[in-house]
Amino acid sequence: MNLDSVFYPKSIALIGASTKPQSVGNDILKNLIEQGYKGEIYPVNPSAPEILGKKSYSSVLEVDGEVELVIVAVPAKFVPQVLRESGEKGAKSAIVISAGFKEMGNLDLEKEIVDICKQYDISLIGPNCLGVIAPEIGMNASFASIMPKFGNIAFLSQSGAICTAILDYAPKLGIGFSKFVSLGNKALVDEAELLEYLYNDKNTRVIGLYIEELPNPKAFLEVAQRISTSANPKPIIVLKSGRTTEGASASASHTGALAGSDKGYQSLFDQAGVIRANTIAEFFNYLNIFANAKLPKGDRVAIITNAGGPGVLTADAVIENGLKLATISQTTIDKLTPNLPPASNLHNPIDILGDAKEDRYKFSLETVVLDENVDSIIVLMTPQSMTEPVITAKSIIDISKKTDKTIIAVYMGQEQLQEGLHILEENNIPHTHFPEEAVLSLSKMINPNTNLTKEQLEVKSFVIDQKSEIQLILENYQKNNYLAIPEFEAVNILEKYGFDTLKYKIAKTEEEAYQITEQIGVPVVMKIVSEDILHKSDVGGVVLNITKDNARESYNRILDNVAKNVPKARIQGILIVEMANLKEGSEFIVGCSTDPSLGHLLMVGYGGIFVEVFKDIAFGIPPLRLVDIENMIDSLKSKAILEGVRGQSPLSKELLIDTLGRMSQLLIDFPMIEELDINPLLVTPNSVKVLDARITLKKI
Amino acid sequence: MNLDSVFYPKSIALIGASTKPQSVGNDILKNLIEQGYKGEIYPVNPSAPEILGKKSYSSVLEVDGEVELVIVAVPAKFVPQVLRESGEKGAKSAIVISAGFKEMGNLDLEKEIVDICKQYDISLIGPNCLGVIAPEIGMNASFASIMPKFGNIAFLSQSGAICTAILDYAPKLGIGFSKFVSLGNKALVDEAELLEYLYNDKNTRVIGLYIEELPNPKAFLEVAQRISTSANPKPIIVLKSGRTTEGASASASHTGALAGSDKGYQSLFDQAGVIRANTIAEFFNYLNIFANAKLPKGDRVAIITNAGGPGVLTADAVIENGLKLATISQTTIDKLTPNLPPASNLHNPIDILGDAKEDRYKFSLETVVLDENVDSIIVLMTPQSMTEPVITAKSIIDISKKTDKTIIAVYMGQEQLQEGLHILEENNIPHTHFPEEAVLSLSKMINPNTNLTKEQLEVKSFVIDQKSEIQLILENYQKNNYLAIPEFEAVNILEKYGFDTLKYKIAKTEEEAYQITEQIGVPVVMKIVSEDILHKSDVGGVVLNITKDNARESYNRILDNVAKNVPKARIQGILIVEMANLKEGSEFIVGCSTDPSLGHLLMVGYGGIFVEVFKDIAFGIPPLRLVDIENMIDSLKSKAILEGVRGQSPLSKELLIDTLGRMSQLLIDFPMIEELDINPLLVTPNSVKVLDARITLKKI
Repeated sequence: MNLDSVFYPKSIALIGASTKPQSVGNDILKNLIEQGYKGEIYPVNPSAPEILGKKSYSSVLEVDGEVELVIVAVPAKFVPQVLRESGEKGAKSAIVISAGFKEMGNLDLEKEIVDICKQYDISLIGPNCLGVIAPEIGMNASFASIMPKFGNIAFLSQSGAICTAILDYAPKLGIGFSKFVSLGNKALVDEAELLEYLYNDKNTRVIGLYIEELPNPKAFLEVAQRISTSANPKPIIVLKSGRTTEGASASASHTGALAGSDKGYQSLFDQAGVIRANTIAEFFNYLNIFANAKLPKGDRVAIITNAGGPGVLTADAVIENGLKLATISQTTIDKLTPNLPPASNLHNPIDILGDAKEDRYKFSLETVVLDENVDSIIVLMTPQSMTEPVITAKSIIDISKKTDKTIIAVYMGQEQLQEGLHILEENNIPHTHFPEEAVLSLSKMINPNTNLTKEQLEVKSFVIDQKSEIQLILENYQKNNYLAIPEFEAVNILEKYGFDTLKYKIAKTEEEAYQITEQIGVPVVMKIVSEDILHKSDVGGVVLNITKDNARESYNRILDNVAKNVPKARIQGILIVEMANLKEGSEFIVGCSTDPSLGHLLMVGYGGIFVEVFKDIAFGIPPLRLVDIENMIDSLKSKAILEGVRGQSPLSKELLIDTLGRMSQLLIDFPMIEELDINPLLVTPNSVKVLDARITLKKI
Repeated sequence: MNLDSVFYPKSIALIGASTKPQSVGNDILKNLIEQGYKGEIYPVNPSAPEILGKKSYSSVLEVDGEVELVIVAVPAKFVPQVLRESGEKGAKSAIVISAGFKEMGNLDLEKEIVDICKQYDISLIGPNCLGVIAPEIGMNASFASIMPKFGNIAFLSQSGAICTAILDYAPKLGIGFSKFVSLGNKALVDEAELLEYLYNDKNTRVIGLYIEELPNPKAFLEVAQRISTSANPKPIIVLKSGRTTEGASASASHTGALAGSDKGYQSLFDQAGVIRANTIAEFFNYLNIFANAKLPKGDRVAIITNAGGPGVLTADAVIENGLKLATISQTTIDKLTPNLPPASNLHNPIDILGDAKEDRYKFSLETVVLDENVDSIIVLMTPQSMTEPVITAKSIIDISKKTDKTIIAVYMGQEQLQEGLHILEENNIPHTHFPEEAVLSLSKMINPNTNLTKEQLEVKSFVIDQKSEIQLILENYQKNNYLAIPEFEAVNILEKYGFDTLKYKIAKTEEEAYQITEQIGVPVVMKIVSEDILHKSDVGGVVLNITKDNARESYNRILDNVAKNVPKARIQGILIVEMANLKEGSEFIVGCSTDPSLGHLLMVGYGGIFVEVFKDIAFGIPPLRLVDIENMIDSLKSKAILEGVRGQSPLSKELLIDTLGRMSQLLIDFPMIEELDINPLLVTPNSVKVLDARITLKKI
């Protein structure tokens, strides 16, 4: 993809330029001409000789210079034609503003323009978008009237309205943008390509994404993971709508795209290492803070405040967001003591009292910034009669310039603190109105990828000998539409993938049943094998606790039951399985479902009847790196059971990790698997055993 | 308490009035004189004949008129004397601004001024506070310079800084106050008295409280509960700091007061029916919205939007906050269809498209407001080129005036929407910048007390015959410092309170042991009874699964073990208890601890090893009404087990409710109980049985 041609084009043709004021084709032209773009601008409109003082062309092919970027704002049905012409003209990229594609159900038309762009190697932004703004070169290739200031935030949004809202807020927030893209339907260029591009863009420090669905989640995961685990990670901040079923369904009717489950997206974001905002306010706040703040080296926060109550609220927020209250060192306390009033509190939160003027703030901040126990500092000011918001702001700016520690100013007021806030903003000092939002941002600045080992960042690969054999078996079931494959086959496959399973064998005669029972060792369980029987117990197809004495009788009883209850069932035999010893260890559940948008979604959790009661489960998207598996397990409350609760032996976390790694690989190896359930998986101090397994294949 | 004299005094003496500009005693006088107070003002300062043009008095006793309210701003050590004089003068209330009392460790001085105020029947606000503002009569009896506008919010705060912050924000938020009180140390008048007063104040519509600790939690609970369950409830909104242990400890060092556990406070707020804000931003936002919005009659929300993405985010927020997306009626859809463009979405969220002008907003809102399926409406606007924020605001105002449904405007922008926002604010139309905060407020407006029955609102009373007998038993143990009372005694007390317990009896001889075993029915458990042995199992003091055959031997074995391991232990006998049948039912845990600030904290949860793993527990503060018990149980995930998970029989929720009711009464009846634990409590489909119980008494 040639994305330089989108953000730094030397020449632009606007196809659908209009003479009619307040029309999209007129607004864009006006924005291009008036907001500082220095390259060539060619309006294309067959029925006007000139628009806004520029010569207009009847077709892009008529333009007498080169055209690097085309902006298309003609009715949808004309778009294929003008894109073909643009391709012939040699355009390298196109921004299609026009609506009337996938979002209106016109999938074919959208596919047609994608094919044309691919044919001519055109990077396509849109269709159905607001356009692109590149403040750096003064290019407003959109119909939004505001040109934001140049800054270090790259902003990509699937919603045009979120674009106009943030443009409208930007001056108040004091934020600027490196690149600003309304993505529209993302028919060709999507988040993955843009992330790759923006990672290498020296003007971009933080990337903000508003997403309704990801057309290419695996590519997104791969790029985002690479960025977040690189030596120079760039923060990626995401706001994703459709978190609830109701929201997702509203989203589907709005965008024409199927949003996947939110638990799936949450796993994707966790594994990708992106920061998720839960509300629009959070999103804007993160962008603002990340654009300006230095990233902290650790999680120890010091609070300097002129008010006790707000200091306590800040301390609460620090703890609730998983950060630590820094323990102020004795050296610092010794330095502060003689210079602050006796009623001050020198332990964190450091309360320099309501009558603190600039000198007290300055001295405390200068001193605390040197404390080795402190990674970041929140300077909190409430408007008191002695407060000096302006010169205190100047001190904060000076000290911030000289340190690589994170300093966030919280100016908790409006009227009296206005000017101070303005000075902080002008000097790019991160600041908020309330302490909680400062702390929340701070908590997101701690990069969880910092101290990971090479091993943790890798997807472990397991050598599987009989992969092609399994492939054949599964294809065969799939072809015969036998999608819920037999239990013994599921167990067989898991065995080949290195899972420990119960001993089993299929008997076809009474005599075989006896001999197998003897071989496996009593007691055993017998279960009917038939593609026509889904709920085996319901038809008398399962007998437990069988010994050698009643092996024959049990075999015959099952066949009799089935013959009576499902006379037409085709019988493959009777499965004889070792009975599990449930006394040792705990039952977990490991499974996989297929998300319509994200594909395989792997699941692990505490099993038994508690699955439904405590819903203690975690999700992941294969391929899972070691750290992903560790994070999944660590997020379970039942992790305590693995670690050994109330004097019980710890269970083998290592083997559970191994199991999830193998499962991840199995799912990558066989995309035809629709669902897989190991329930229960018995985890003991030194083993992990599949007690029951079920695999369902995708319908072809 | 005579609180009218605080808010509507005819005359005020300022004791400690000062000639020195920017001193507290000068600022207050200036505020009193210049901000509209019409009553008499008497500065008291022995060393100045006149201050700010007012005659100054050497003592309050010298004042020639009556003095209804005194404001005290003299050093702490002089406060008792001036309060005594004020009492002699006949002052009805006092606002003590002076610091240097409990918060500095001077508990005696604080007690002294409380006693004086009680003696003279003076309502005391403070000490250590910012003062009181009553905008209605233009009285600024504080050293905060801002007089907020008169409005319907009563605001009480333990933190002066939170007061100055909200005063500084108020103009921007457009909010006004009926009464504004900095509570300081709350030595005499606290939240409970003020709530009572404000409930009857016709100018107050919503009450906001910032709390660090409640000096009198039971009184607060009683008043707040009465207000929130009355026919005309007033919303009470609380921001409480010290939610974390670290925050609480910072708070303790700041206020000198011990904050109770947050789970206790959360229970208190839940039972009181108050609305808790989690952050300062939430707190201000709730106050703003509650001051202006009509309370919705139900939870069905309609969304009208000019933008799809933000509409979806709003729908997400609706669901996540426990509200419902209204199903738009066919009648409404039929009315909307011919009047909106075909691309509009007429199902909720109703998307009237980006080019919607005022007419489309007006028509949609007028139509949707009549829909019987709709309780509240969020009107969402993003700034698009065709958007008409000002005249749309006017339409919203007009329609809001004519309906009793809740309408909240979300104007998602700054520059372009500024004027429209201003008009909404001037006309007291609830509005926010972002949809999530509007929805969050809306969700808090649904009063959970609306449909409760009389029975649910009552504390059930159980007739206990032998209360005075138990009182004697417990007093006796307490007197002898035998605080962890014997298990059999705990079980005995529970039995008298109507709990079903295991059969038990104490044996003092081998022969008795045999006979009791026979009476109870095998198998039984034997346990040593000795005040000197806490951990019975560790010294061989417990034997399980005893039958008649080994009853004698077991009795002797326990005595031998104890004689060997704890030779000096005083032995009361051996407790013989029925063995429980654990096969049926589930183990719960019911307990009580004593919170340093809130007193008894009752607890119920799912038991066994899962207590520590899943921490599925709920808390309550006795006395518990039926609805409190129901809410506690409903908040448990293990409620699903009570209801019968995966085809298992439901367990007796009724009997568990009964158990918690009896426990609540037991704790009210015997305040000397420090801790009580029933673990496990076996809950079966038709019984609830105490399998083990432990009671610890408070040290006297």
